Amino acid sequence: MHKHYDRHPTGAFSMVNDASMNESEQLKVLRDRIDSIDDQIGKLISERAQCAQDVAEVKKSANPEEAAKSFYRPEREAQVLRKAMERNQGPLSNEEMARLFREIMSACLALEQPIKVAFLGPEGTFTQQAALKHFGHSAIAMPFSAIDEVFREVEAGAVNYGVVPVENSTEGVVNHTLDNFMTSNLKICGEVELRIHQNLLISDVTHVKNISRIYSHSQSLAQCRKWLDAHYPNAERIAVSSNAEAAKRLKGEWNAAAIAGSMAAELYGLKVLAEKIEDEPDNSTRFLIIGTESVPASGDDKTSLVVAMRNEPGALHNLLEPFHRHNIDLTRVESRPARTGAWTYVFFIDFSGHAQDAEVSKVLNEVSSRAADLKLLGSYPKAVL
Amino acid sequence: MHKHYDRHPTGAFSMVNDASMNESEQLKVLRDRIDSIDDQIGKLISERAQCAQDVAEVKKSANPEEAAKSFYRPEREAQVLRKAMERNQGPLSNEEMARLFREIMSACLALEQPIKVAFLGPEGTFTQQAALKHFGHSAIAMPFSAIDEVFREVEAGAVNYGVVPVENSTEGVVNHTLDNFMTSNLKICGEVELRIHQNLLISDVTHVKNISRIYSHSQSLAQCRKWLDAHYPNAERIAVSSNAEAAKRLKGEWNAAAIAGSMAAELYGLKVLAEKIEDEPDNSTRFLIIGTESVPASGDDKTSLVVAMRNEPGALHNLLEPFHRHNIDLTRVESRPARTGAWTYVFFIDFSGHAQDAEVSKVLNEVSSRAADLKLLGSYPKAVL
Repeated sequence: MHKHYDRHPTGAFSMVNDASMNESEQLKVLRDRIDSIDDQIGKLISERAQCAQDVAEVKKSANPEEAAKSFYRPEREAQVLRKAMERNQGPLSNEEMARLFREIMSACLALEQPIKVAFLGPEGTFTQQAALKHFGHSAIAMPFSAIDEVFREVEAGAVNYGVVPVENSTEGVVNHTLDNFMTSNLKICGEVELRIHQNLLISDVTHVKNISRIYSHSQSLAQCRKWLDAHYPNAERIAVSSNAEAAKRLKGEWNAAAIAGSMAAELYGLKVLAEKIEDEPDNSTRFLIIGTESVPASGDDKTSLVVAMRNEPGALHNLLEPFHRHNIDLTRVESRPARTGAWTYVFFIDFSGHAQDAEVSKVLNEVSSRAADLKLLGSYPKAVL
Repeated sequence: MHKHYDRHPTGAFSMVNDASMNESEQLKVLRDRIDSIDDQIGKLISERAQCAQDVAEVKKSANPEEAAKSFYRPEREAQVLRKAMERNQGPLSNEEMARLFREIMSACLALEQPIKVAFLGPEGTFTQQAALKHFGHSAIAMPFSAIDEVFREVEAGAVNYGVVPVENSTEGVVNHTLDNFMTSNLKICGEVELRIHQNLLISDVTHVKNISRIYSHSQSLAQCRKWLDAHYPNAERIAVSSNAEAAKRLKGEWNAAAIAGSMAAELYGLKVLAEKIEDEPDNSTRFLIIGTESVPASGDDKTSLVVAMRNEPGALHNLLEPFHRHNIDLTRVESRPARTGAWTYVFFIDFSGHAQDAEVSKVLNEVSSRAADLKLLGSYPKAVL
């Protein structure tokens, strides 16, 4: 078992190392203590929910129309989660602590008005997982069958937010999320990262030098095609019903490996021979939250924009130079074919910082003057975890 | 918006009804208060996690072999959740409060040893939802493609627990969960109820007397076939890609209704004309947790058993009489064809109480003497919510 957290430094709560007590006495002491902690946690959660209601009341009386839309503030949520992680002394991991606070916030928010979210369905996809990870399980999340439907639902005001994958490989979507932004006025209000990685797994009996067959679900085999071509060009690739099934097969076969996630490795006691072997690591692990309003700075933000330029030598270099000069960190640059004849290239650019930061604002002006067109897609809190 | 909870009786936390403060000052006070509450919640969660680790240490030193299997105690979890609900004064609903405690327990338990759960897949099904509802999102839950595979995984010790639907309609499974118990020594360790109900929805423009077409996903239409035959024999049934799609269609059609869940009604602002219209209400809403060990009494338990009897007049009445005489509440009786020639009938019986209760124990002895065979499938905490 891996422990990716620090033990509580003081051990202050270990009050049962008393040799005079037997097991059931010790357990009794601990369970009474847990009950008393739960009592306090329950009261505090109630108190927090009451405060959230008060926040809603204040907003309603100040600006009824605005308040009716949603009480959800992405920048505030990100701040709360970051604080929860900063304060965390273990033994829970920061990820678990943030997850619990996400759910507490989700429950408090739903009390006033459950947040409505449209996601690229069907149910059970990674996009649904991303939606629930971001908004918590008290949100009302509904599947839609195409990315542009998700955009339309948000634009029409039928839902507060939409959740769409940035790329399309995992869920077999044809159109490209970013293309939708070119014709939409929606803003990016947040991002979600899911850790979905493929690994090459082996069992205790595997002869690593003699791997001649590799089991996995057909989709996972496809996602790792290039990697397999490079590393196991001669191994037979056998598609089975699921990655879990693939993992199970390894037990009796000394010349086989499986492609599956880390959960399967943990469940079946398998070893990870190679990790993150998917050909496009970024593909399905990032999702965008789309909404109608701009998000104020949270203190650790990202900005996305789309830039159109003519195809001239050195154009991209020229465009990106102001970022470099102002020490602004580009996190992603992606070119897409332009749909209009006038533009030859369209670039989607993500960078660290908020559009309202003085420095970023300067850079945006410079970049804008060098591009044929520039559209700000949104500034939003960086994925908290 | 419906509020199914009581407001906090005292309003003790409403400290911002001060006309001298403007909106942002009021919000500042409330948010500072929330931050301080979060600080306390975070510390208490850490303390609770530390206690959970101490519990694990005590168990390990008392009985290393037993402890290595799992630190999860179904009866203890049920008690903690019930207490959390009893203590709850609102404004959160009991269901939300219990959900939050489930996640806190799940995180604390995973710290020591994440619980491994096999469920009837694929991913995205109601059974997965049931597994995560019961074990929380820190559990490792893996899909399997058949109910007997789930049984085998648990029997082999590859996972701690399995989650299977009691019935098979929703997820198109062919074999019957209960049949598996006839050849397995696994115990029922818990039950999960999911509220999955179909409703007949209408919009503001619908003429209730003139409904001539009903939209839904084909599966939902099939689930409500008898109800539709009885109530709307002449309405055209139109299968669309999802229940959400069906709900959306209502906006422009005055003579149409849709079958969908309550989430769709909430999302699209539709009215529920008739609720719980599925033909077999019990079908897909109950799931069983299966494991290798018996669960001690939690204080509010259910017991399941399978009884074989010969086909004699009055046999079932004779069999059930002791339950009646001892005032034991039967919650479900279901007959199944016996697989062996010797038994003519097999009955699955669920009743309130734990096999170790004195009264129940007496009844079981009596019933056993009247039946050809009796097998106790398990006593387990009633579904908490």
